Amino acid sequence: MTMKWCRFHSGDGSIRFGIVEGDQVLEVKGSPFEQYEKTDQRHPLTSVSLAVPAMPYNFYAMGANFRKHLDWANQRFNLKIGVPKAADMGYRSPSALIATEETIVIPSDSVGPVQYEGELVAVIGRKAKNLSMDEALSCVLGYTLGNDLSERAWQFNDRTMWRGKNADTFKPMGPVIETNLDPNNQDIKVRVNGKIVCEFNTHEAVWNLATCISRTSRYVTFYPGDVVWLGCDGACEPDLVAGDVVEIDNVAIGVLRNSIVREN
Amino acid sequence: MTMKWCRFHSGDGSIRFGIVEGDQVLEVKGSPFEQYEKTDQRHPLTSVSLAVPAMPYNFYAMGANFRKHLDWANQRFNLKIGVPKAADMGYRSPSALIATEETIVIPSDSVGPVQYEGELVAVIGRKAKNLSMDEALSCVLGYTLGNDLSERAWQFNDRTMWRGKNADTFKPMGPVIETNLDPNNQDIKVRVNGKIVCEFNTHEAVWNLATCISRTSRYVTFYPGDVVWLGCDGACEPDLVAGDVVEIDNVAIGVLRNSIVREN
Repeated sequence: MTMKWCRFHSGDGSIRFGIVEGDQVLEVKGSPFEQYEKTDQRHPLTSVSLAVPAMPYNFYAMGANFRKHLDWANQRFNLKIGVPKAADMGYRSPSALIATEETIVIPSDSVGPVQYEGELVAVIGRKAKNLSMDEALSCVLGYTLGNDLSERAWQFNDRTMWRGKNADTFKPMGPVIETNLDPNNQDIKVRVNGKIVCEFNTHEAVWNLATCISRTSRYVTFYPGDVVWLGCDGACEPDLVAGDVVEIDNVAIGVLRNSIVREN
Repeated sequence: MTMKWCRFHSGDGSIRFGIVEGDQVLEVKGSPFEQYEKTDQRHPLTSVSLAVPAMPYNFYAMGANFRKHLDWANQRFNLKIGVPKAADMGYRSPSALIATEETIVIPSDSVGPVQYEGELVAVIGRKAKNLSMDEALSCVLGYTLGNDLSERAWQFNDRTMWRGKNADTFKPMGPVIETNLDPNNQDIKVRVNGKIVCEFNTHEAVWNLATCISRTSRYVTFYPGDVVWLGCDGACEPDLVAGDVVEIDNVAIGVLRNSIVREN
């Protein structure tokens, strides 16, 4: 069954889970990760302020997982990154997450370039370990979108990717979680200021989602709310600057939209 | 004022915060990160099962932060890792955390070596951003100990440190949080099977804790419960095998003790 889960800022200052039904958000008690009950509270979707749809306990991200993205990065930045031999997960930091319509802030001392990476994101729904390839997707609650924003000077010159990929506001995720889609055949489009600048299908992944989850689960327990970002394909241009609006679009999930400012 | 915070498994199956007073644990309502009240429930310290003393939202770890450790690692593993130019944080995964007295499980296909790294850990007490060097330690609630257990074959050969450093049970942390100590002058001892095998003082850190926190906070917001592991000095030998008991010891914090088994 298809369902769209969201989290939204409630009138009382708390953040609650809701189910998107048409142009309405139906408020629930509880969460999709535990038990929940539908309430009789409905809000027009256009009137609610959406929050990050899941707050991960562990934040996993595949890097270097699409060939055309590697070809582009190697050429643009004079690198020699090869296709990974195995689905080795990277990590990101939950502190960097923001919701759709929240603002990406480029730190004042960034020399850039700052670039988007539009990605499919799996949201884990239950505790899971040692999943076979066939079982792997059974632990997924649903799918959302992510923008793995990257400050390339820091990404390539720091010892780690702590600020290059994990500075505050650098990880937009949302808008909602769609429970029913095929992660191996999703078109992801990126628009900058309304113009399509990147388009790819997740079937181009070097390591598909089931492989990533199955391999990781051999050594690591997944928990409800954990997220797995699959990586992006193709180029990440044009470089982003203050005033830009960047959108990650998937027909089943919706649009993750964030504008960009520069820190004073 | 000196206080020792712990988390422990309560009789009703929940995990609660407590204050260690002498040989007793005083149960509290709430947490050190928010408001709390002391209750009249006391338990003998020896009778409680301690849990990981903080569940981090973000898990930061300095790598390559002590010269004698780098010298040893470069020689043992034929590496050429230099002293880092700046305090660039690495990340670990909360899923790998275990408490004192819990068991480290080496996956069955590990070729090793598996090694300890005994470290001082700062537990962040409040939300903080843009802290100067002078302000940096003001956001710290207190200090605990960590064992940054490492499977070196995976650490050096995988694309990331996901299983080399973050396999389930690979991050023992505890036993308690001591609120009053000088992080720049702590002796850390490591014992394997009762014998001291490593001893260093945190004043040898290339980048001290205030520098690490101040620099990170320029780009990243710290949250209550986040942890910052400072790194280890010296050698990490002997290599660990099933049956070993490894202890990280600091006179103010106590002893983080874990035994090792091998997965069948």
